[in-house]
Amino acid sequence: MKTAEQIRKLYDEEKCLRDWSDFLRFQSISTDPEYAGECVRCAEWLREHLSSIGLEASLLETQAKPVVYASYRSPQQDAPRILFYGHYDVQPADPLEEWTTPPFEPTLRDGRLYARGAEDNKGQVMYFVKAVEALLQEGQGELPVSVAFLIEGEEECGSGGIAAALESWQERLQADILMVCDTGSRAADVSAITMGLRGIAGLTVRLSGLRTDLHSGVHGGVCPNPATELARLLATLHDADGKIAVDGFYDDVPEPDVEDLALANQVELPLEAYQAMSGVQPVGGEKGRSFAERRGFRPTVEINGIHSGYGGAGMKTIIPRDAVAKITTRTVAAQDTEGALRKLEDHLLRRAPEGLVITISESESGGSGLAVSASSPVIERARTVLEHLQMGSVELMWEGASIPIVASLAEVANAEPLLVGFGLEEDNIHAPNESFSLDQFFKGFSYVVGFLSSYK
Amino acid sequence: MKTAEQIRKLYDEEKCLRDWSDFLRFQSISTDPEYAGECVRCAEWLREHLSSIGLEASLLETQAKPVVYASYRSPQQDAPRILFYGHYDVQPADPLEEWTTPPFEPTLRDGRLYARGAEDNKGQVMYFVKAVEALLQEGQGELPVSVAFLIEGEEECGSGGIAAALESWQERLQADILMVCDTGSRAADVSAITMGLRGIAGLTVRLSGLRTDLHSGVHGGVCPNPATELARLLATLHDADGKIAVDGFYDDVPEPDVEDLALANQVELPLEAYQAMSGVQPVGGEKGRSFAERRGFRPTVEINGIHSGYGGAGMKTIIPRDAVAKITTRTVAAQDTEGALRKLEDHLLRRAPEGLVITISESESGGSGLAVSASSPVIERARTVLEHLQMGSVELMWEGASIPIVASLAEVANAEPLLVGFGLEEDNIHAPNESFSLDQFFKGFSYVVGFLSSYK
Repeated sequence: MKTAEQIRKLYDEEKCLRDWSDFLRFQSISTDPEYAGECVRCAEWLREHLSSIGLEASLLETQAKPVVYASYRSPQQDAPRILFYGHYDVQPADPLEEWTTPPFEPTLRDGRLYARGAEDNKGQVMYFVKAVEALLQEGQGELPVSVAFLIEGEEECGSGGIAAALESWQERLQADILMVCDTGSRAADVSAITMGLRGIAGLTVRLSGLRTDLHSGVHGGVCPNPATELARLLATLHDADGKIAVDGFYDDVPEPDVEDLALANQVELPLEAYQAMSGVQPVGGEKGRSFAERRGFRPTVEINGIHSGYGGAGMKTIIPRDAVAKITTRTVAAQDTEGALRKLEDHLLRRAPEGLVITISESESGGSGLAVSASSPVIERARTVLEHLQMGSVELMWEGASIPIVASLAEVANAEPLLVGFGLEEDNIHAPNESFSLDQFFKGFSYVVGFLSSYK
Repeated sequence: MKTAEQIRKLYDEEKCLRDWSDFLRFQSISTDPEYAGECVRCAEWLREHLSSIGLEASLLETQAKPVVYASYRSPQQDAPRILFYGHYDVQPADPLEEWTTPPFEPTLRDGRLYARGAEDNKGQVMYFVKAVEALLQEGQGELPVSVAFLIEGEEECGSGGIAAALESWQERLQADILMVCDTGSRAADVSAITMGLRGIAGLTVRLSGLRTDLHSGVHGGVCPNPATELARLLATLHDADGKIAVDGFYDDVPEPDVEDLALANQVELPLEAYQAMSGVQPVGGEKGRSFAERRGFRPTVEINGIHSGYGGAGMKTIIPRDAVAKITTRTVAAQDTEGALRKLEDHLLRRAPEGLVITISESESGGSGLAVSASSPVIERARTVLEHLQMGSVELMWEGASIPIVASLAEVANAEPLLVGFGLEEDNIHAPNESFSLDQFFKGFSYVVGFLSSYK
């Protein structure tokens, strides 16, 4: 197994920064059709880049954004095949005015690179690429493992394109291990192996019917108010204890495995740290369950946005013509995610307020949750590498977030999932001023080099 | 009393349209500080215009927007003094993209003038001005009544400036009748005398505390969600029957006077017409009370806007950093409007969700409701004029809308209020494509000429 010293010698920070920055300049916002062209240009750049480091690279077309596929076949007999999954798309960058430097002009400040996608997921994809590049150079084009890259462009909006195409790529995707670097740890001095991900599905609900905004004096008390009715409708989604109040929603949600939950609870929650990072105390969700349980083992229904009527200075005395909410549900691995969305829709439709028109549109399909077995030899190997490289204590984490496609991808590829990532809360992913530190980037590089070369 | 024929001879449509259009070009949006300069320019124009038709005109400074004051003293012994109140400010024009022609470029189409303020209140102020001008011309500078104009610039945002200054102007405001033309009738073939107005007060409530938007996967189920909590908070404002669920809110709301309610209910509600105009059925407000009662005799709490988090295309998986709602309450004449606002605030504060910061800011002060006595001789005279001029059947209306300052103004001026206006629902006041028909403008002109000259 390579030592930390040996790995550092393989690392070229200047080159990493240059390529990473080039990758970040593309405004590859997948959720907004306006940026479709930028997504394609970003995919083309990445294909070209993977080709330039010695992989056979191509774009796989889907019904939406192209997927970058690249592969390297090891000459060694019985070399394990590693499939790396990541995404080149990013979240929208608004509110733009809150960025210190423009989101698509990567800027280095105090050892951190600032840009939309700096961490999620372009930064974590890039250290994997740079690790493979370094090992190929060191081995004069030879690696002890076969590697395939599958980098999609719709992770932030539900992975619709790749999901529909997966089955047709089954053969080329066959792998022993599915590596994903799209997670993080709770602090810089610990490393984390992610044991679970939640599934995700989303919808938009709109109440309308009014011909236009109406005068709230002339019509107040006689016209149904879409803003009021939407608030009342959304308020029915949870009970007083924070539990989801949708009929049958918990039918396929098992109580957590006792050993898993015990392991998850071992990762102590630093309350002050949580408040310092988020601004608030973690008092959301279901009462009577631990932080780790609420985040890793329980589903949620979250409102991501509500918009209706006037929001400017002063007052505007209207009954708003319509009201819209964007809602996502996170599901646990055992849960039928599409079924959960259907139950949520039924709940809203059944409570449609009198006199208004309710419209529900589903977001492009999300994906199921994932649960990894704690006894898997791949998990053991990853833990050994991380400990060997002295990357802090290694924790097993049950995440609250989703990487929509991972569960189906592991199934189609017939591969054991391995999720290790180096994101930190301070990275502000999905928010203004996203960044990733050079230190964490280098840790990611070291882990990948260490893990891949452990098969030698 | 002048005949309709005599009045038509006094009417110069071309001149009216020109002056009315000039008045409409000012973007006198009072609620938005950005337009403060436009408000002042509008007031100056109006002062100049009133001066040009023979009145002694000046600007009265207030703590905010100036008030246009102009007066004419009749040489006739014991001539009654009429105080006319109106406003030169308008509602914001957004959403701009829904206007067929720009809101501040008055455009004549099919006998209607389109612009923000075309009706509310610039159009109705202008026919009053033109009527006084015509009578002064006809009488070679002499009128049978004394007239004073008090045209303020903050009606759409609570009349704060004029309210604070009223007492200090008491002497010059003394009048027999307070005339207001800021109301309307339910159809073009009826005339309406407004017998009641509701009071108004508003607030903005914000839930915050999150450092920034947070990832709805990483934080979902642990972080309190401001959008969800705001929906839950707003949902407590009404009970299942549409009644306001704020403690003590109805303590000073009497049941309507039986005779007044009977008169109000006589004005038949054309359900199809309501739906055609508004797009929805009038199923809002308190169950078990008539349309006229809910609108004219009962208070409301209406949400004028809610904004939180993402509202664009696709999904953005965040817990929004904050959530804001704008709320107004309409009160009945007997109610203490400030007290009602205080109760509403207490209600919200007492239910502040755990873990988040609640902030409430009151809108600039609104005003009380108004109830006119059906037996007043002024009401009788107005009815006689309207019937004499054959302006359709005359109805007594209890309005749902507010003209915040009218109640206090009537008290300070020691005057009997007379509210007759020629607005129609089709005018789209407070909404895109506001307009006012030349027909209704002329009716307003006729009514004012008829009423003022009835004292001869």
